[in-house]
Amino acid sequence: MTMSHLDREIASQPKTLARLFDKERKPVEKLAVAIRQTGLKHIFLVARGSSDNAGLYGKYLFGARNRFIVSLATPSLFTLYGRPPDLRDSLVLAISQSGESDDLCHVMQEAKAQGAASLVLCNYTKSPLASLARWVFPLHAGVERSVAATKTYTAELLALAMLSVALDGTAKDWKELRRVPALLDETLEMNQAVAAQASRYRYADRMAVIGRGFNYATAFELALKLKELAYLAAEPSSSADFRHGPIAVVGEGFPVLLIAPKGKTLADMRELAGELRKRRAEILAISNDAGILRMAQCPMPIPADLPEWLSPLVCAVPGQLLARHVANVRDCPLDKPRGLRKVTRTL
Amino acid sequence: MTMSHLDREIASQPKTLARLFDKERKPVEKLAVAIRQTGLKHIFLVARGSSDNAGLYGKYLFGARNRFIVSLATPSLFTLYGRPPDLRDSLVLAISQSGESDDLCHVMQEAKAQGAASLVLCNYTKSPLASLARWVFPLHAGVERSVAATKTYTAELLALAMLSVALDGTAKDWKELRRVPALLDETLEMNQAVAAQASRYRYADRMAVIGRGFNYATAFELALKLKELAYLAAEPSSSADFRHGPIAVVGEGFPVLLIAPKGKTLADMRELAGELRKRRAEILAISNDAGILRMAQCPMPIPADLPEWLSPLVCAVPGQLLARHVANVRDCPLDKPRGLRKVTRTL
Repeated sequence: MTMSHLDREIASQPKTLARLFDKERKPVEKLAVAIRQTGLKHIFLVARGSSDNAGLYGKYLFGARNRFIVSLATPSLFTLYGRPPDLRDSLVLAISQSGESDDLCHVMQEAKAQGAASLVLCNYTKSPLASLARWVFPLHAGVERSVAATKTYTAELLALAMLSVALDGTAKDWKELRRVPALLDETLEMNQAVAAQASRYRYADRMAVIGRGFNYATAFELALKLKELAYLAAEPSSSADFRHGPIAVVGEGFPVLLIAPKGKTLADMRELAGELRKRRAEILAISNDAGILRMAQCPMPIPADLPEWLSPLVCAVPGQLLARHVANVRDCPLDKPRGLRKVTRTL
Repeated sequence: MTMSHLDREIASQPKTLARLFDKERKPVEKLAVAIRQTGLKHIFLVARGSSDNAGLYGKYLFGARNRFIVSLATPSLFTLYGRPPDLRDSLVLAISQSGESDDLCHVMQEAKAQGAASLVLCNYTKSPLASLARWVFPLHAGVERSVAATKTYTAELLALAMLSVALDGTAKDWKELRRVPALLDETLEMNQAVAAQASRYRYADRMAVIGRGFNYATAFELALKLKELAYLAAEPSSSADFRHGPIAVVGEGFPVLLIAPKGKTLADMRELAGELRKRRAEILAISNDAGILRMAQCPMPIPADLPEWLSPLVCAVPGQLLARHVANVRDCPLDKPRGLRKVTRTL
């Protein structure tokens, strides 16, 4: 079996994240000082695709840790309607692997014209997007060849977490952050076990993907991987939103992927798992809770000792592996999903 | 055939919205004066289910018309994590049919404790949620008996549009708003035509629902109706986000519902329709553009003379009818979808 770019990029995440941590550990402190000096408490966040999902993590992270309010941008107000909001009270934060998306450049151009504070998280510091921003936070992730983002997604999460800690953090937080690459290494060991379970989903067409709080982002990102790679109609949702309607689709055998690491959301996820069992749904679980793993037909155990705020970095990995292996049993090409390009140009 | 509550509530929308308009046309001017006096330009919006989708309309509406930045709240930061953001620079806006949801009350309680300006859009002015807010905007929609929200959703949209116009609007805007009930009446005439087409989706299990700009909200709301009522795994997305990955799921015969009224988003939707045709997808279209309707296997024509900013009120109706009739041919109960209650209690 020849290795795909996707396989190599999934496997490279511990090293990629360790490099990012080492290279930006000091610069991010300076960046945080500059941001704190602006006195801003609102972040206006703009991104697409996987980077937009990373932004969802930022929404909870900057909310819970820094008490910021994060608004996700609506690019069409800039590009199609020509009615951008007043950005001067906000830190405009763009997240992009390539830094080439026209709509993001449009938003950043407007931020510049308004004199707003702006930051770009990007893999390419010389990209058009990066050149428009006041500050740039480089991801150092190396070229990503597979169309489906994996290492750049987790690198974006780590960059956001580093910034959050640099803004308001303790030595303990930095120590926890430093452990992330090792945790990813440990999690990647489940690769063969996930491969063995993937054939069960050869003929699945749909899936619900549920995560809450910090892992709301994970639900969106893993649903996107399952769509892009395995052509599964996978729909993300929080456990709360799911109960407000979408749960009606769940009948016998309907597959539901639960992202349920230990933490504040676990009790709620456990209750949902019970409801799903009553409906005789098929449960896939990314968890370090023995009870939830026991309830799952497809358990994906993650390291036990995992701080909740960093769990999205770890929980992404089993889902990447699942999407990769399900894609394989469904004969979907791993590096070039149908109809997608690496840089998507939208306005 | 006995009529369901759902049928009656869908049919009642012109009258419900006319009543809301007449009763609140004057009070909303006073409300707008009070809000303008706060000088706030950020809205912190909290809602669940269909009301959350109405909030998405608000995000574009207040953005495009009033140049406000709208943040959608993350209730778990209040309820599970106990880390609410600083709300004093924001107008906290809760939208709820019942006004009984515990998580929304939690957020509103916190807004009150912080002394933030707050407004509740609600069908019940004596509800726990309404009693916590500084201002209340009543929906006057009458009791909604069907679990799936229809008339309260469009009433919420109208209330938001009235507030936006009261904040920054012209006599022409008010005149356009006044026409909404008549436009809904006209749109409801397609009921039999939609019923005739519904059997085609007897065995559809999945659907993508695409709308952009003002109708991003419509995509989310109609996907929710299709899930709740017809148990279809319907996933909403903007045309831009769709191209950043999810489009990979679309193969031959994959059904895609396009919400494509005339306006700034039409060119983009037309281009997407062309791409979908190349993939031999099944196209369902809610549109007043002859070109898009011709490309659709299931065309749902809406009134020609429709201002884009109000099109979400009209475009919701064909989707409600579609969900209702597809539910019927799939033998799903119309008023009590499996596993749902009218008031969902989540924290």
